[in-house]
Amino acid sequence: MQCSQNTVRVRLQINGTFCLTEIGHGTNTKGMQTTAVYDIENEEFVINSSCFEAAKCWAAGLSQTASHAIVFAQLIVKGEMKGLHGFIVPLRDPTSLIPYPGLTIGDMGEKTGLNGIDNGFLVFHNYRIPRKNLLSKTGGVTLKGDYITSFKDSKKKHGVSLGHLSIGRTYIVCTAAAYGIKALTIAVRYAAIRKQFGPNESEEVSIIEYQTHQHRLLPHLACAYAIRIFGDFILPSCCQFIFDSLFDSSDEHISERGMEIHSICCGAKPLASWSIRDVIQECREACGGHGYLKAAGIGDLRDNNDANCTFEGDNTVIIQQTSNWLLKFWPLVLKQSRISSPMSSVDFLTSATEILEYKWEIIDVEQLCSPNNLIQIYQWLVCYLLRETYEKSQKAMQSGIDPFWVKNNHQVFLAKNLSIAYTQHLILKQMLDFIDKAGDENVKKVLLRLFSLYAISSLEKYHLTTLYRGGYARDYLASLLIQESMLKLCADLKDDAVALIDAVAAPDFAIHSILGASDGQVYKRLESAIMDSSYNMGKPSWWLDIVNKSYSPISKL
Amino acid sequence: MQCSQNTVRVRLQINGTFCLTEIGHGTNTKGMQTTAVYDIENEEFVINSSCFEAAKCWAAGLSQTASHAIVFAQLIVKGEMKGLHGFIVPLRDPTSLIPYPGLTIGDMGEKTGLNGIDNGFLVFHNYRIPRKNLLSKTGGVTLKGDYITSFKDSKKKHGVSLGHLSIGRTYIVCTAAAYGIKALTIAVRYAAIRKQFGPNESEEVSIIEYQTHQHRLLPHLACAYAIRIFGDFILPSCCQFIFDSLFDSSDEHISERGMEIHSICCGAKPLASWSIRDVIQECREACGGHGYLKAAGIGDLRDNNDANCTFEGDNTVIIQQTSNWLLKFWPLVLKQSRISSPMSSVDFLTSATEILEYKWEIIDVEQLCSPNNLIQIYQWLVCYLLRETYEKSQKAMQSGIDPFWVKNNHQVFLAKNLSIAYTQHLILKQMLDFIDKAGDENVKKVLLRLFSLYAISSLEKYHLTTLYRGGYARDYLASLLIQESMLKLCADLKDDAVALIDAVAAPDFAIHSILGASDGQVYKRLESAIMDSSYNMGKPSWWLDIVNKSYSPISKL
Repeated sequence: MQCSQNTVRVRLQINGTFCLTEIGHGTNTKGMQTTAVYDIENEEFVINSSCFEAAKCWAAGLSQTASHAIVFAQLIVKGEMKGLHGFIVPLRDPTSLIPYPGLTIGDMGEKTGLNGIDNGFLVFHNYRIPRKNLLSKTGGVTLKGDYITSFKDSKKKHGVSLGHLSIGRTYIVCTAAAYGIKALTIAVRYAAIRKQFGPNESEEVSIIEYQTHQHRLLPHLACAYAIRIFGDFILPSCCQFIFDSLFDSSDEHISERGMEIHSICCGAKPLASWSIRDVIQECREACGGHGYLKAAGIGDLRDNNDANCTFEGDNTVIIQQTSNWLLKFWPLVLKQSRISSPMSSVDFLTSATEILEYKWEIIDVEQLCSPNNLIQIYQWLVCYLLRETYEKSQKAMQSGIDPFWVKNNHQVFLAKNLSIAYTQHLILKQMLDFIDKAGDENVKKVLLRLFSLYAISSLEKYHLTTLYRGGYARDYLASLLIQESMLKLCADLKDDAVALIDAVAAPDFAIHSILGASDGQVYKRLESAIMDSSYNMGKPSWWLDIVNKSYSPISKL
Repeated sequence: MQCSQNTVRVRLQINGTFCLTEIGHGTNTKGMQTTAVYDIENEEFVINSSCFEAAKCWAAGLSQTASHAIVFAQLIVKGEMKGLHGFIVPLRDPTSLIPYPGLTIGDMGEKTGLNGIDNGFLVFHNYRIPRKNLLSKTGGVTLKGDYITSFKDSKKKHGVSLGHLSIGRTYIVCTAAAYGIKALTIAVRYAAIRKQFGPNESEEVSIIEYQTHQHRLLPHLACAYAIRIFGDFILPSCCQFIFDSLFDSSDEHISERGMEIHSICCGAKPLASWSIRDVIQECREACGGHGYLKAAGIGDLRDNNDANCTFEGDNTVIIQQTSNWLLKFWPLVLKQSRISSPMSSVDFLTSATEILEYKWEIIDVEQLCSPNNLIQIYQWLVCYLLRETYEKSQKAMQSGIDPFWVKNNHQVFLAKNLSIAYTQHLILKQMLDFIDKAGDENVKKVLLRLFSLYAISSLEKYHLTTLYRGGYARDYLASLLIQESMLKLCADLKDDAVALIDAVAAPDFAIHSILGASDGQVYKRLESAIMDSSYNMGKPSWWLDIVNKSYSPISKL
């Protein structure tokens, strides 16, 4: 907990933080318990945490540096609850950084990872702020304590707000990609250098030559590339959206665009963080014992990426936002309407009825690797899972089950897989766009192999059951070809693995791993790291406690 | 790196360690580069590490406490290589713990986990030990430098040796089970206490009520139970084998028993460590942000279990031992011989031909959950994968491919899955034996649900592609029933989850987690952990560096 870069501003006038999550409530924002009661007499809000569960927590920069916070609290005016509103709250004297009376502020304590960022908690003890500190764009309070809201179309506002919140999730997609590439940089380079066994006693081969090792690393390499390319698309898209929503009023569909970006990011953030979690873990194991050294750098990556699965919305919960949004389109499909969205991510649903007619007609590895066929499979998956989730939910609803439970009971295998398939389809389309722009035919060829490997290994990992359950695949051939294609693509990509890593790897000082430097001097660096540590070569302070007393002249006396 | 319990002996006369692995070679023991040259004149062995890659490493207790080591080195007598032999090597003066001249000893450095155990390295600089220090049961050297070996049946010796080496792997199975149960203790108890969302604004429900959360935790709970029960079987089996091999010469098949235990453990150690890796990760994520706190205790578990995937043989490599052993039985199937092994783990292969005729005939969830049907599916998987791996390997061999590459090119989807299915079949059989002995019918019922859930979720995770590829499953029904059964079993087990945890959980002081105590006082413990830390409530030493200078009277001067 050394510094909090994300709250440092250029002019250093305010170190801010953002307090929404409470000890007792995270994803369920409506359940927040912090209250802000308007005191007419003093024209102030009185902010209070009724109990420790109502304490704000996990806010980055809060525990050490923030002088101000945006705090979300339940607004109460004349005894009436008006829902969650944002307030600007001064936290500390900016000259001493001592918290103001009425606040208890501290750190959450040591975490599994990301300890370079502090995360704080905050308890309010009837803490007073001026009336004007309410962020009143959505709703304000008059001097006399009347609640006023100028927004008529709250739905429109909601879409824009959600779009703005997406920026954090797009950062996570990009960060996860960077983590994954770093882990692969270490594991792929090590796999090229490390030799073990061989066809005869005098010859050992690099472990990347083994089918098992190719299968361990190369589908993950394809995945990291896919997410990296997608990150390079979604981050500027999200920034552009925010810019347009603030400064360009010409887009009539700005709210729909916000909703779509929100839905994309609620799928992409979980998929990216989960995928990279698996990438990092496999890279750690693929580096064997030496990969378990802290100096290898993979353990820390895993610990840091771990947070990506949880913050900005727990993966399992926010991924439901994506399917919720998609489910709104099925009635349009039933009406045979033309479907189009600002980012075009669901336009193919216009052809859902035809897509659902498709069956597995692929007869060899080459056909399976073709981008058109793979895109078609993913489109079928989205349409099938959308229809199934919709129809099963409708049926349950008609049988009188509470909508709350209907939604929750159609997540596993249905809504969740729908969100995943939709996101993967979008990632794959984006990857194809990217490949199209590659000038060199040889580069294109290699990238297309990565594309196919990502698409096919994701089918194997996530969707095989659905392909059979939905009748798209009907016999042994789909399973056989999926397995054979993966092995062929791994073998074909093996010789390009190091070059693919070199093309995207960070410089050695940033990789900072004894196993993953670009010069391949694994054993030299390992030797230096081990030998140059004074701790490693010392004697423990407690050596006398475990020494063999029976050998000692003292004990013989 | 505080202490090294595993080298402490009751009489403390010798702190020993075991040096096999070298910097450059781990799993490939034949490639070890440490040499022991017999010097006839002085009747000594001269042990040398030719380079840093030949340094012994990762030996537990070596860096801080060991006074003696068993070191494996290439024996060279009269200029001839005689292969790897074990030597007793004095390392340190037992009264001062200072290493003897001719040795460089140190620590490997900080690791990702298990830093309570030290792991050392050792470089030999032409270090001399007496002739009698050679462990000569397998082969000795006479005074005059003649190499003698008394063992005629080296194959028999090999089986027993491998059986002895299995003890480390059985410990890992048991340790992994304990780690998994600890993680689940935290996550299941937290899931019962933590509430989020609900059907209406006034009512929130425990997160374990959600389908998604049940699906996250309960298959893992079933898995941890399965591995725990298996550990309770394999550890005493292995100890009994070692006892019998040392003290009871009546077992004619002791070598076959050693080979079988070796093959079982080479499957069980990877399966257990990988499964528990996934258990711990899911438990971490299922505890959300608070699960990311170090005080939750899950991050450390993950870091510690991580080593289980690598030590005592890298999972991906040692699991090949299991399939190698199984492949020897296929020619017996072809000859229609009766197949039986000392531990009976492959006896069902006698019926392989009939088993391979079976197809998926299951039509509902109840049938799929039946132990007989599930055992049959796993037996089919073993037979099918055994036949496929054998036939494809034979074909490749006949086409002239080097046997080394034939073996390596039939691992992914074939030999590896064979080892996994064989191990799971054994685990499931063991679980049924255990359930049979349960006195209470209600307990039996719950345990049978765990059995079915473990069996079915493992089918979904590992074997669905194979079931279709091999033509066992032919249409949508297998996929649909697998998914529906998992959801039904999760829902049925949900109310027993806490009791199932309480039945196997360690005491609170050992769980040592703010989220996982038996009294369910999550928020109270969280509050104490956060509030009672003086670090959490302090001001950072560097506060003056980030303070807002423009507010400060000093800067205004």
